[in-house]
This record gives sequence, structure tokens and C-alpha cells, in this order.
Amino acid sequence: MSTATSSIPEQITALQNRIKELKMTKQDASSEIDQMKALKDQLKAAQKEAGASGSALGAQSFTLKTPKGTIDHKPEAALLRKRIFSTLEGIFVKHDACTIDTPVFELKEILAGKYGEDSKLIYDLSDQGGELCSLRYDLTVPFARYVAMNGLTSIKRYHIGKVYRRDQPVMTKGRMREFYQCDFDMAGNCDPMVYDAEVLRVVCECLTALDIGEYTIKLNHRKILDGIFELAGVPADKTRTISSAVDKLDKMPWADVKKEMTVEKGLDGAIADRIGQYVGLKGPGGELLEKLRSDKDLMAVPRAKEGLDDMETLFRYLKVYGVLDKMSFDMSLARGLDYYTGIIYEAIHESSAPPSLTTNPSVPAPSKISSKAGKSAPASSSKNEDGIDESTIGVGSIAAGGRYDNLVGMFAEAAGKKAEQVPCVGVSIGVERVYSIMEMRRRGREEKTRGKETEVYVLGLGGVELEKRMEVATLLWDNGIKASFSPKANPKAPAQWKQADDDSIPYVVILAPKELAAGTVRVKAQVGKDASGEDNKGEEVKLSDVAAYLKERLAKA
Amino acid sequence: MSTATSSIPEQITALQNRIKELKMTKQDASSEIDQMKALKDQLKAAQKEAGASGSALGAQSFTLKTPKGTIDHKPEAALLRKRIFSTLEGIFVKHDACTIDTPVFELKEILAGKYGEDSKLIYDLSDQGGELCSLRYDLTVPFARYVAMNGLTSIKRYHIGKVYRRDQPVMTKGRMREFYQCDFDMAGNCDPMVYDAEVLRVVCECLTALDIGEYTIKLNHRKILDGIFELAGVPADKTRTISSAVDKLDKMPWADVKKEMTVEKGLDGAIADRIGQYVGLKGPGGELLEKLRSDKDLMAVPRAKEGLDDMETLFRYLKVYGVLDKMSFDMSLARGLDYYTGIIYEAIHESSAPPSLTTNPSVPAPSKISSKAGKSAPASSSKNEDGIDESTIGVGSIAAGGRYDNLVGMFAEAAGKKAEQVPCVGVSIGVERVYSIMEMRRRGREEKTRGKETEVYVLGLGGVELEKRMEVATLLWDNGIKASFSPKANPKAPAQWKQADDDSIPYVVILAPKELAAGTVRVKAQVGKDASGEDNKGEEVKLSDVAAYLKERLAKA
Repeated sequence: MSTATSSIPEQITALQNRIKELKMTKQDASSEIDQMKALKDQLKAAQKEAGASGSALGAQSFTLKTPKGTIDHKPEAALLRKRIFSTLEGIFVKHDACTIDTPVFELKEILAGKYGEDSKLIYDLSDQGGELCSLRYDLTVPFARYVAMNGLTSIKRYHIGKVYRRDQPVMTKGRMREFYQCDFDMAGNCDPMVYDAEVLRVVCECLTALDIGEYTIKLNHRKILDGIFELAGVPADKTRTISSAVDKLDKMPWADVKKEMTVEKGLDGAIADRIGQYVGLKGPGGELLEKLRSDKDLMAVPRAKEGLDDMETLFRYLKVYGVLDKMSFDMSLARGLDYYTGIIYEAIHESSAPPSLTTNPSVPAPSKISSKAGKSAPASSSKNEDGIDESTIGVGSIAAGGRYDNLVGMFAEAAGKKAEQVPCVGVSIGVERVYSIMEMRRRGREEKTRGKETEVYVLGLGGVELEKRMEVATLLWDNGIKASFSPKANPKAPAQWKQADDDSIPYVVILAPKELAAGTVRVKAQVGKDASGEDNKGEEVKLSDVAAYLKERLAKA
Repeated sequence: MSTATSSIPEQITALQNRIKELKMTKQDASSEIDQMKALKDQLKAAQKEAGASGSALGAQSFTLKTPKGTIDHKPEAALLRKRIFSTLEGIFVKHDACTIDTPVFELKEILAGKYGEDSKLIYDLSDQGGELCSLRYDLTVPFARYVAMNGLTSIKRYHIGKVYRRDQPVMTKGRMREFYQCDFDMAGNCDPMVYDAEVLRVVCECLTALDIGEYTIKLNHRKILDGIFELAGVPADKTRTISSAVDKLDKMPWADVKKEMTVEKGLDGAIADRIGQYVGLKGPGGELLEKLRSDKDLMAVPRAKEGLDDMETLFRYLKVYGVLDKMSFDMSLARGLDYYTGIIYEAIHESSAPPSLTTNPSVPAPSKISSKAGKSAPASSSKNEDGIDESTIGVGSIAAGGRYDNLVGMFAEAAGKKAEQVPCVGVSIGVERVYSIMEMRRRGREEKTRGKETEVYVLGLGGVELEKRMEVATLLWDNGIKASFSPKANPKAPAQWKQADDDSIPYVVILAPKELAAGTVRVKAQVGKDASGEDNKGEEVKLSDVAAYLKERLAKA
């Protein structure tokens, strides 16, 4: 059947590769595209014939794979992700959050102009008539669209979902075209720093609950940063571009950053140096704050003073929330995205903190304040053992976010609604990165991962009939116990034991004719699976009691 | 940034030309016209907004909406769906299932030729260079692709995810372009009917656990159906098309179905009548099976006998699983999809069973057997009160599936692998339909839905400072209690009470200066929220005990 048309798909695949090459080298591929389209029409016709002539599914031929930059999450991975998500959800709902579920694609213009240069990475749906749509690039823009569209003035929401970026995937480094994001945002008016402090408390609860090891939260404020630029004499129109240069201080030494400012971006060298005096500063909140507040020049800049007042309030609240010691006030943190208007932060995991965090010799820092981040970030580990490309959410960061007070209003305004400002502060937990850290730690502990949670295997000996095993399984299912058995009418004993072992099922219920006649079964804990290993011979239990017996044992385990 | 809208006029001109062409060639241009109207509206809005927007993110204009056929699931809806999913997941994992998570888009050719005429409903991603991809149309084809690609010989998996169909949406009827599917499949060799019976047991566990009311499972076997066609003398090449005509018996009377067979599909009238004698039969498994097995002509057709032997085995197992009484053996069930090879089934909900289920007078049925389905399906209710378009998963069906033994092998073969057959049997639970039934029942009970699960509101009186409320909230969070409070430094009491009421938060912890000085707080159960309504004045509790006190109360509730 497949021979009828198998040559066409091969030709198409060949053409597709050819076209890919041509496009990558920016050559004209139009004639190849026409050829391909023609072949595809032929193929369709052939399939239609095949279908009409009684073929169930038509005939085709192709390579079995997922699209470039995407993967199947296999059972073990899917289960671990499920556990990460439910841990995070549990914390978000504890903090008064609801969840919303927006479509995976949005109208093209909703995403347009939100991501600067990265807009070229947006996936478009093909124009099959009707509206032009694109796959969502993140969860923040759909959230802002939702808030504006529904005219909400306040909402606390979390959203865990896949987002899409037509980036050059580096599978080995974990940079994918389809990946999960997990966002928590608090929108609405609050007195200064109240929501900001709670979001940081939530971040700490999440990273602690996930048990991934030490982390530090780098913290800064856009207004302080802008105040410094103003003080240093950066022209207003250069503020954002200079800001993004500063943001690179965790990836490159000051000398290179200064070069980018002066040579590439035409900033006066003296101005760059004044910036350098500040952006090298980092340390525990209180100390650095004191130092900056004693800086009369800086305090004379209204924006800077506002930012410093905010930080003072924030630190007071973070102390109440018991997470102040996790913070590192870091003047070099600038964050790429344009839409931040207040505090900004990035959580850095010990396994991947860059050396710049511990010490950045080439930065002129009159009085470097030793930082917790430093302690928990050995330079040696900057190699990022688990091989995840950190560019996905910033160097080494496992969570990042900040305050963005204008995004929702911009949507409302653009839609011609009365431009209602809805201030927002939020965080995106880097779940893919968290996943790979947990996976790495698990491997370190040499734990066996399971793809399913089955608790009991019902095993028949001496030709116990299938219906009897079904009957016992039903008894267990009715009692909420996760149970499985061989789908064969007369399975061999070794095959059944192997199945139970292969699936690492903690308990086996053995049905044997003689015991069944006496109304009993034997319950055996799989070696090494049960906390108390004393019952390797198994225990004889009344069939009528077996469910209660197992529930108790499973609860203990 | 204005580039975001500058191309609209060009798009409009292009569309106008395209529409002209289409009209000249007498083709349908409605979607192009819709698109042009949408663009014109955008342009108008853009002109109105021109210059008015100096936002940091650039000026654009558009209508704030989700794409046609998609919706945002708001907090209440998202939470109810979350509960439905976790109920179903709990049952699937009890039955030894893992879950996998496949990409939301697949290579275009993976989906090609799987959906017959419906292939035109597949969403394609636009060709931005690289592979041609399409959004998944269901979860079955990606599952078969996964099994074949990984060379698996057996797997039990569930998958809950969104699927995409470029159908003409009927929002009022719940027919969407993006909607959830929930599939459970058992793949691999088993002795006859073992997995088939367990899938049906799973369906019954799910529909019972969801508490949606009465349901019946219509059951049939492709081999019996094909045997009947063979006996009646249907030409082999007409089998599938006649089968799909039979499938319409739940939507139209026999007379119309016969007309479709004879007039439209050119079947001999006498042959149609012989079919009619069988497809009108339905009833509890045992009785109808007996009747059919006593039919010598039918038993003489090998395929039919095989199918009837299967059914006999199946009913034996279903009895052990305690779900036999839910089944209605129904010869008129044929199911649209081509790939079924064995048993097929559809679960019908009482609220939407079509009259044809109770009685189909125009079907010549020599000895109609009364059917449980009938009892639970008043003809009057065929109107489908909750307004869900049943065509999405068959008339009134809330779950549907069957055995498909060739799909995985077809993928392996098409990929040029050694064509390994992996027999599969599975079910798709119509979660969107289940959702609307539960929503309808909730409205019937006039229950207030909540979008979040917050348990305690921390309320401050007499100018209790913000930090104190933060401190108490922290105490509650640390004890796993879901708590919230006003984000204002000095909130008015009425505003705080209103917040607690608006969110239907069951408990309020009241902080007042005098009580705090004495180390106590007052815990008040919101009226009507607490099981025991006796404590409307609230109860004074030591601050040090309040967490334990609330945990106990919440556990009881």
C-alpha cells in the first residue's frame, strides 16, 4: 500500500531540506517551493484515491519524530513535572491566587511590539482564512490582555503553561522551542511594596519547597538604576540601551561592558566610569541601602530617592516575612525587558551562580560589601554542570520578575478603552531549569525514578484463574489502591514477578489455590521497597482484610 | 512600532483583489470578507488612536479579544476543570497508567490522512522556514506516533491536553476551536477482552466519580457489524460508507438512513432491509447476545462469530468488574472513525440521550429488547438543555472509544520500521461536556462557585499596623493555611469585611489592639460558611494557638 506513493514523500522531504538550506543562506527557494507544493498535491490525490478504494488510513511515508526544538515528556519526566507543578500550585493558592487558562494562540497584533528584537521568534499560524494568530511567547502578555479585556482592577493569579519561541534550539543545553512557564502575578493597587514583598516571599517558599539547594535573590530597583544614569549624565534616549549593557555584568567583566557603552553606544567615557562606581555595589540589603542613602548626590536625584525609600520599606516587610536573609541588593541587576517600572529580581541557584557574583575584580568598587550570594556561589560551579543554557531565563537564574505598572494600561489604551492603569508585580519560576536541577540531584542520589505510581501487583500462582485476579484487583481499586496484574489468562510466575520488578511496584499480593481455599492471600513487600524489610517471606492475610492491611502499610511507607 | 499597523491597508487591498478573484470564479469568499472587515475595524481604531499613545511599548491599536473559537477559562471555570482533571487522573493512575506529554504541534505529515474529510479542519503553522507543522487534532494520533517512534510494545497511558480544530465554532453550543481532550489507552498484547474490559471499568469509575448523574454505555463490535454487512450482501468497498450511514441511526429515523444507503450510496434496497433487521436491536448484554448466537445465518459468518465470542468473554469480565448493568449492547452503534477494529462504545448521559435510544419506531425490529438506556433516557430530554453541541463527540456521548489494533503498526510501517503491530484499546472522556453538565447541576443547586480556595482573611481593627497582619498571615502560611489580608497600610473595617465576603472566605481572624495586648485574636466563621453556625460572635483564641485551632476547624469543614 505504502509503495504506491512512498517515493513522493521522499522527494518532498529532500526538497524541504534543500529549501531549509537555501533559506538559511538567504537564497531564493521559490522554484523549489513550487515543486514541493505540486508534489504535495499529487500526494494528497494519491491518498484520496487510497482512501476511496477502501484503505483505512491512506498511504504515506515519513520519519517519526517530534518537530525541531520539541520533545515528548516521557512518563518519568511527566510525573516529576506534575509534582513540581502541584508543589508550586499549593503555594500560589496559599497566597490567595486563582488560576486562569488562556488560549495557546493569541491574535497576532496582541503580541506585536512587546518583545523588541525577539519578536522574530514568534510562531505564526498559517493564514487559512480568518484572523491572523500567533502562539503565545510568554504568559505575561496574555495575562495583561486578560486583565485589560475584562476591565479588572485587581487579581492575583498563577498560570502554568507551555510557551513557544522559534529560537535556534540547543537540545543538549535545554533551550527548546516549546517549554513550560510558571507565572505568579499580583495586580492591583496596594500601598508601596506590599505585593512586592509577598511575591518575594512566594518565590522563597517555592524554591525552598522544591528542595533544590541553596539560592540567592538578586534585587534591584529600576528607579535607582535610572537615577544613577541621570546622576552620571546618561542622555535620556540612551537610558534603556545603557541599562541593557549594565545587565551583562554577570556575563562579562566591567571593561567589556564599558567598551560596549562607549565604543558601541557612544557614551562618554567619564559617564561610563561614574556608572561603574555604582553598578559594582552589592550586598545584604540593610548595609548597601545605608551606604546609598548616605550618598548626597544620589539622594538629590528624586527618582533615586523614591527607589531607595521603596527598598527601605521592602526590606522591612521582607524581615517580617522571614526571607530578608535570602536577598542580595545588587546594583548590577538591570533585567532585559523594557516594561519593568519598579523593583526587579532574579533568583540564582548555587549550582550556576556566575563568578561575577562572588567577585568582579575589574569593577571599580570603592567598598565591596561581602554578599550571601557570594558565599553560596563558588566560582568553580559557574560551569553549570547540568548543562542547561542559562540564557533562557538569565545566567543561572531559576526565577525572575519585577514590577510592571504600565503594561495593562497600554493594552486598555491601545484598545481604545479608558486607559485604566493596573499596577502589577510578578515572578516567573524557571520550571524547566528547576526540573533539570532536581533531575541532576536525583541522579546524584542514584534514585530509581518511576513513571507510574502503581502500589500493588496481583500475582497468580498454580493456575489461579484470571477472573480471581480481576476480582482481587477490583477489591483493591474499590478501596482506592493502585493495582495491576498480568493481562494473560495463564501467565507464567517468572513473567509476573518480572513485571512487578520492572515497574518497581512496592507490594505483591500472591494468589495461590491452597491459600485461596482457606480464604487468605500472601502479601509480600518487594525487597528494598518497604520501610521495614523484615517481612521478605511475605505475610498471610485474610482476603477480606487485605485492602485494609495494604492501606495501612501504604500509609506508613 | 507603528509598523505594527502600517501594513493593514496593504492587507486590505490584497484581500479585496483576492475576493474579486474568488467571486469571479464563483468561489466562497466569506472568510476573506470577514477578515477584511476585521482589518477595516482595526484600521479605524488605529486611526482613532493615532498619536494618542506614547507608551514605552509603542503605539498599536486592536480589539481586545481571544481568537475566534477560543475562550479564556476564568478562575471559577479553571478551578472546576482542575478538579475534574484530578478526579480522572486519580482513577487512571489507580489502573496502572502513566502520563506522557507530547508537543502541541506535530509534523504536518504525521496528521495527514488520519482524519478523512476532517483533515481540512487541521491548523497549520505558517511556513517560517524549517519543518511544516500542524496543531494536534486529537491525542490519539500523537500517542500512536509516540508508541511507534519509541518502539514500545506495551504502555498504559493517560493524556489530558488541548486539541485544535478549525471548525465553524458555535460558542453558544460549546463547539470550540481549542478544547480539552482526556484520553486513557491500554496498548499491548493481552488475552481477548482483558484490556477492553478494564477500559470500560475505568469509564464507569470516571463517570461515577464525577457525580454527573445517570449514564449508559452503548456497546458494539466492528466484527459483528461487518459480519452483518457481509451476511446482508454489502459489497466490500461499500462497507465503511454503509457503516457510517448506520451510525446516524441515533440522529435520524431508519427510513432516512435507508434512503441514504440506497439513493445516495446506491445500495440494493433488499440489502438495506436485511441490515435494518439487525441494527434496530439493542438491550442488556446477555439477552441480545443469546438472541444473536441463536441466529444460524449470522453465526455462519466467521467475522460475526469472532465478534460474538469476544462479546461473551467481555460480558463475563464486566460482571466481575461490577459494571455489566451499565452496558447496552446496541447494534446501531458504528462510530465514525475508520481505525476501529474491535469493540466500540459510547457513554450516553441521561440529560441528552436521543429519543432513538428509547424507541425508534421506524426501525423494523422483530423483537425489540427493552434497554436500561431507554429507562435512563426520556425522549423529552433529547433537546439537550445545557445547549452543548453533541456533534463534538457524538450525540449525547460523554465518553467514547474502542479498540484500534492497526494504527501504531501503520505508523511503524510508514516510517519504514519493521511494522510491529501494537494492539490498542482506549477511551476519550468528553471533559468539556462533563464540565458543562457539572456546571448545569451546580447552577441547579444554586451553589456559589469560588475562583480561589483562600481559607482565612486576616482583618485589622483600631489601626492595627500592617506588619502585624503580615506577621499573622506568615504564621498561617507557615502552617499551610491559605490566608489573605488587605494590601493597604490603614484599611477601613468595612472594606476589609467586604473583601472577605466577596471572596467567600470561610474564616476571618480579627486583630484588635486590646486583644493583641492580651496575646489573643478573635476567629469568626463567616455566616453560612461554617458547618456549625453557633459561633457567629466569633471565638477568642490565643495567638499562639490560632494556627492549630484553624487547622482543626478547616479539617472538620
